[in-house]
Amino acid sequence: MTVDLKLFELVDSKTRKVSFSPAVWRAKFALNYKKITYESVPLTFLEIPTVITAACPNVISPTVPTLQLEPGNGLPDSFAIAEYIEEQYPDRPLLFGKNISEKNLQRFFESYVQSKIHPPIRRMVYNDMYSMQDEKNADYFRTSREKSSGQPHHLIAGDRNQNLRELKESLGLVHTALQSGDWILGPQPGWADFVLGASFMWFNSCSPNDFKEGILEAFDDQIMLNYWKKMQEYVY
Amino acid sequence: MTVDLKLFELVDSKTRKVSFSPAVWRAKFALNYKKITYESVPLTFLEIPTVITAACPNVISPTVPTLQLEPGNGLPDSFAIAEYIEEQYPDRPLLFGKNISEKNLQRFFESYVQSKIHPPIRRMVYNDMYSMQDEKNADYFRTSREKSSGQPHHLIAGDRNQNLRELKESLGLVHTALQSGDWILGPQPGWADFVLGASFMWFNSCSPNDFKEGILEAFDDQIMLNYWKKMQEYVY
Repeated sequence: MTVDLKLFELVDSKTRKVSFSPAVWRAKFALNYKKITYESVPLTFLEIPTVITAACPNVISPTVPTLQLEPGNGLPDSFAIAEYIEEQYPDRPLLFGKNISEKNLQRFFESYVQSKIHPPIRRMVYNDMYSMQDEKNADYFRTSREKSSGQPHHLIAGDRNQNLRELKESLGLVHTALQSGDWILGPQPGWADFVLGASFMWFNSCSPNDFKEGILEAFDDQIMLNYWKKMQEYVY
Repeated sequence: MTVDLKLFELVDSKTRKVSFSPAVWRAKFALNYKKITYESVPLTFLEIPTVITAACPNVISPTVPTLQLEPGNGLPDSFAIAEYIEEQYPDRPLLFGKNISEKNLQRFFESYVQSKIHPPIRRMVYNDMYSMQDEKNADYFRTSREKSSGQPHHLIAGDRNQNLRELKESLGLVHTALQSGDWILGPQPGWADFVLGASFMWFNSCSPNDFKEGILEAFDDQIMLNYWKKMQEYVY
């Protein structure tokens, strides 16, 4: 098996140390769960197009994560990366299970996280993500987010209490699901758990206080905290 | 295997012919999918306590569905019934798959249907369900629903357009999931599909026009209609 894998990641442009992208964390969790060795290549927003295009000319629209499989050949998109390593390393713990039904249900869970849990987090981390950027990256971030949200800079974060309420509402089904086992999937984690964990990493990397209040302390028990602690095994 | 199974079902009190309860339909789909023979016992709201208590004295709080396993012994709750027949008939097609992870993910899907798809349907069928009852059952239905919803009779149905919007929003993830296969699970149906199909049966039995507009025609393609057609194989 190749040992030359490189993972192009997104980091903040002020310290270059904080990997905050939820899409990147999905790939990292998947790689770490399977104990696959890779070299991390940290990039700022503005470095993504040039560095990835130079390293992996086959990637038409450079995004993170991109996994460089060998020099010149990159695989973008967290789900495609997960499918690739699942196929390449079938002897390692499975991300998707053995049945198409389980994979489809995990994709449903992924859609849920993406459409119900990401939006309130996205608004809550907005100002902190902005502050983590140097001037040029901050400009890029602001402009692209104003465009994607259709709102001016000062309105994107929205009302904090309303964001917390919306997040808790969407987290309710997750909290219920975690009551029946250690992980969303049961005794072992898998793609669904790493999708969720990746949003938590994103939230915590940018806005640790809001993460604590909005996720870890959202319910009157230890379920979210214990889940988060267990997840740390795959954070590196 | 026993052939004396009886399923206590809910029917309208005017014609006694319409089985409209989504909980009952989950059990019926599960039984039909496994081709298990059972005798149907139709009950109105007001008959449930007396008839089930007399037939199955072990059932403390009589509800539908209740599956009478043998004279005097009833099993209430659609999920418990599904688990029971899955265990008793392991040679028949599986409802939950072979892995706990798949079962847990199906339960997550069930929670989603229950908390996101049922509420708008519940409001949209309210007036029709009321009209399907004779005087005494209508009184019971109205009183219990006023209590559970915390709203007076004339407000329970809510605004039709808002209900349709909310339903379509929640149906979005389902529609996406159905794009990758025949069923939510893929090439074969299972518990998740029957949970969803049961809500559709409920909606269609009570308010066929709203069902058509709110489900079958909610998207600009044939996905929901084809799904509904396929589901008919298990409707009897």
